[in-house]
Amino acid sequence: MTETKTVTIATLLGSLRKGSYNAAVARALPALAPPGMTVKALGSVRELPIYDADIQAEGFPAAVTAMADAIRAADGLLIVTPEYNYSIPGGLKNAIDWLSRLPDQPFAGKPIALQTASQGLLGGARCQYHLRQAMVFLDGYVLNKPEVMVPSVQTKVDERTGALTDATTRDFIARQLVAFAAFIGRLR
Amino acid sequence: MTETKTVTIATLLGSLRKGSYNAAVARALPALAPPGMTVKALGSVRELPIYDADIQAEGFPAAVTAMADAIRAADGLLIVTPEYNYSIPGGLKNAIDWLSRLPDQPFAGKPIALQTASQGLLGGARCQYHLRQAMVFLDGYVLNKPEVMVPSVQTKVDERTGALTDATTRDFIARQLVAFAAFIGRLR
Amino acid sequence: MTETKTVTIATLLGSLRKGSYNAAVARALPALAPPGMTVKALGSVRELPIYDADIQAEGFPAAVTAMADAIRAADGLLIVTPEYNYSIPGGLKNAIDWLSRLPDQPFAGKPIALQTASQGLLGGARCQYHLRQAMVFLDGYVLNKPEVMVPSVQTKVDERTGALTDATTRDFIARQLVAFAAFIGRLR
Amino acid sequence: MTETKTVTIATLLGSLRKGSYNAAVARALPALAPPGMTVKALGSVRELPIYDADIQAEGFPAAVTAMADAIRAADGLLIVTPEYNYSIPGGLKNAIDWLSRLPDQPFAGKPIALQTASQGLLGGARCQYHLRQAMVFLDGYVLNKPEVMVPSVQTKVDERTGALTDATTRDFIARQLVAFAAFIGRLR
Repeated sequence: MTETKTVTIATLLGSLRKGSYNAAVARALPALAPPGMTVKALGSVRELPIYDADIQAEGFPAAVTAMADAIRAADGLLIVTPEYNYSIPGGLKNAIDWLSRLPDQPFAGKPIALQTASQGLLGGARCQYHLRQAMVFLDGYVLNKPEVMVPSVQTKVDERTGALTDATTRDFIARQLVAFAAFIGRLR
Repeated sequence: MTETKTVTIATLLGSLRKGSYNAAVARALPALAPPGMTVKALGSVRELPIYDADIQAEGFPAAVTAMADAIRAADGLLIVTPEYNYSIPGGLKNAIDWLSRLPDQPFAGKPIALQTASQGLLGGARCQYHLRQAMVFLDGYVLNKPEVMVPSVQTKVDERTGALTDATTRDFIARQLVAFAAFIGRLR
Repeated sequence: MTETKTVTIATLLGSLRKGSYNAAVARALPALAPPGMTVKALGSVRELPIYDADIQAEGFPAAVTAMADAIRAADGLLIVTPEYNYSIPGGLKNAIDWLSRLPDQPFAGKPIALQTASQGLLGGARCQYHLRQAMVFLDGYVLNKPEVMVPSVQTKVDERTGALTDATTRDFIARQLVAFAAFIGRLR
Repeated sequence: MTETKTVTIATLLGSLRKGSYNAAVARALPALAPPGMTVKALGSVRELPIYDADIQAEGFPAAVTAMADAIRAADGLLIVTPEYNYSIPGGLKNAIDWLSRLPDQPFAGKPIALQTASQGLLGGARCQYHLRQAMVFLDGYVLNKPEVMVPSVQTKVDERTGALTDATTRDFIARQLVAFAAFIGRLR
């Protein structure tokens, strides 16, 4: 009960477009979070170069270590992302690849939840199972249910304000955040 | 028979490190190709920014269109890549994401073969099934067999010269290239 | 052109329930097939025991060899199935496992198409990617597109007659069958 | 500490052959378990008919309810199985499908570990990711690491006695059982 009052969630966004629908989903999270849950956005995946072990050998980019510190400081990680070509967007995967190389990689033992939104009918489902497979290696603990996959997201966001307005979607996301808080509590 | 005399294969490399083992595999391909098969390396995935639809709206980066033109001009595409975190390296996936957005995306109907090498025991197998799933959406025709997954690759490359020296691996790759030429012939 | 006049398709059904929605989809196929395509139902996956190599050592069950002969005689195989627990139904997978052990296994080089229907929103999509992965090993050539995934199928079948009545779904399936005929022609 | 003294693990075996290598792995488990862990074998997947909702409507087979009761009574479930055709054996999947239909399905919230053995080089890895995907739907909590995938298992079992004799494999399995006990403790 009281535990959820101190839960901090870091959100990692998989898309870059200014008018991104997934960004709209991510922006809605603080208002949808249960009492006691704080939601903080991580930096953009745009800040990272394409992973190259030779760059790593000279030192991790500051954007990587900052992102890792913020994930470590959070009680849970929430990935909000579109699906690109039936899999993980390259930019998001590139961020995960960088973070995975840190000596104390930040996904290990971390509770993780996934949200995908797409303009198609499947809502990004395929991307989620690829992310789950990556998290097996990285030893992240990914929440099973409820799975947030938002289909036809273009009909659920106000194009003018960029707000996620669909009530059913908002309720469903709120329910996942409650389940995520309980999952974090169980894993403590 | 005579068909294979004119087969051109473009290779897309998933890693950037100078001493990359997968680069060693890719460099070995011209010498392993059957008579009549030409192997040409595509540009580096490093040249592409992280995909952003707002950048696309201003025009595709020249590196994307050059890569697409080279794939279209080839009879087949060969992807040579490490596996990162049980999936596709972010940089490679980012290149695929950019290429997929072109009006006449270059994977459609294209014969494709996969090669992965890793220092672990599975040789990058998990990455290959994620690439195959992406190619369902992109309508690429991916060769089923033989699957080239090179485990313990660090024991199969001469660290000094960067040459792929393991005879068994070289023979196996050569066999895949013959099968790939036949696959291309069947799909013509 | 004239080739499609002689195309024979064998259909393998993944469910057993008398009122099965996927059976309704399978029954609709002959009427939806393009001119010249014949659709023949294979035997039920119910006829096969759970795979056991000790049974195989005494001889393949007659139901297995009959199913294999019918697949070999066909120009293409169409699998119509529900998704169970985010993967392939055990009974269907068991049939594939038996067929795969035959000396001249019938999936090798065979054009294959997939159709899934479910009462949920994703239409059985997850099952299709697992079937595709099995077919990599079995060297089946699986049609990429269009992917037939029928969501909310309970609203598209007449419960009284068991007929697939939804016009949009019928049109989409008919389009896949045309694409499948072309795919078979390309692979000949 | 004392918690592990009361841990009971149920094992579900995916193969039926008398001389099954995976059965050899499963038989080795009681001797490899840490102090306080009891390992009990579930019934054979052979006992279940191919899943049919019409059979279910007349009542679940006794073998299904017995298996479910034993899983519910255990603190964790360990699946030991070969990989068939790059996926889950049909017989094992069929057992999971039956169990999943019970009103109080036994996988929900249950700690689960996976072990696969194969005669090939990948040790059944592909099967494990398909099992993990099924367990997302069924809300099982699958241990991430260490992943037990036993390649070339035919060289690690004494054909005469059926004993798993390879010391490295035995040590690795013992390590997974310790990690599984800790995982169960964390989820309590």
